[in-house]
Amino acid sequence: MKNEKKTVTLDDIAVGDQFVSREFSLDAEQIKNFAREFDPQPFHLDETAASQSLFKGLAASGWHTAAITMLLMTESIPFANGLIGANVELSWPRPTRPGDILHVKSIITDIAPSKSKPDRGFVTLQIDTFNQNGEQVQKLTPKVLVFRRGAG
Amino acid sequence: MKNEKKTVTLDDIAVGDQFVSREFSLDAEQIKNFAREFDPQPFHLDETAASQSLFKGLAASGWHTAAITMLLMTESIPFANGLIGANVELSWPRPTRPGDILHVKSIITDIAPSKSKPDRGFVTLQIDTFNQNGEQVQKLTPKVLVFRRGAG
Repeated sequence: MKNEKKTVTLDDIAVGDQFVSREFSLDAEQIKNFAREFDPQPFHLDETAASQSLFKGLAASGWHTAAITMLLMTESIPFANGLIGANVELSWPRPTRPGDILHVKSIITDIAPSKSKPDRGFVTLQIDTFNQNGEQVQKLTPKVLVFRRGAG
Repeated sequence: MKNEKKTVTLDDIAVGDQFVSREFSLDAEQIKNFAREFDPQPFHLDETAASQSLFKGLAASGWHTAAITMLLMTESIPFANGLIGANVELSWPRPTRPGDILHVKSIITDIAPSKSKPDRGFVTLQIDTFNQNGEQVQKLTPKVLVFRRGAG
């Protein structure tokens, strides 16, 4: 398959490698559209209801923040075989709000070659999503499958 | 706020309580639409590319499975103050496929009253998403905030 992006394999990466995404602007309409489809709770759908909730104002669904983070990951993490995750830990220390401009910083924290299959390994990443004030809105720790050069 | 659903508070629930959702049918168009917006990788977008990938056929983004699971959770878990999560563990033991009919079974596995705020507690759930063959496509373990009666 042709690929115009420069991509990397398990042979090309090291613990400590970092990747930074572009910025993504989020508005109230996007927040409400996602919520209507997947998380129709009042604090994600309506400013007035949200102002009376624990969030004290409209907040994006955490799953919306996670989905935007995935988009920014696919654009900024150049693993040749893509991003295939099996399990993750995920937290939202702070809500994502209308008008937020998000970006994602990823760092490789562990690389474990597969014991049974020599053509691949499992790479642990720390994926931090920040708003325009440098405040963290999501912390994601996925383990993803990465192949060696020429495999997969 | 009026609420026609019968809802429950921290005073009404116990470890072992279970909730089962309705069924949700997923087709290839929905899988591709979600992927175009949030996870544009070939194995979520195109049958031919997917057949040559690790997935051996079109597969939904794990974040799409997570978002559908959230929709089914909002409909089937009757906590009066909604579902507000701070952190989760999440895994996808098997891909979600076009034609899958998903449902969600939730069970309360732990209830921890807040030490600092007597009007609330943290409830741990095990949220299992199954396809029409009873095969598990997602395992989610969130900790959510639930208020006592009359609080919040």
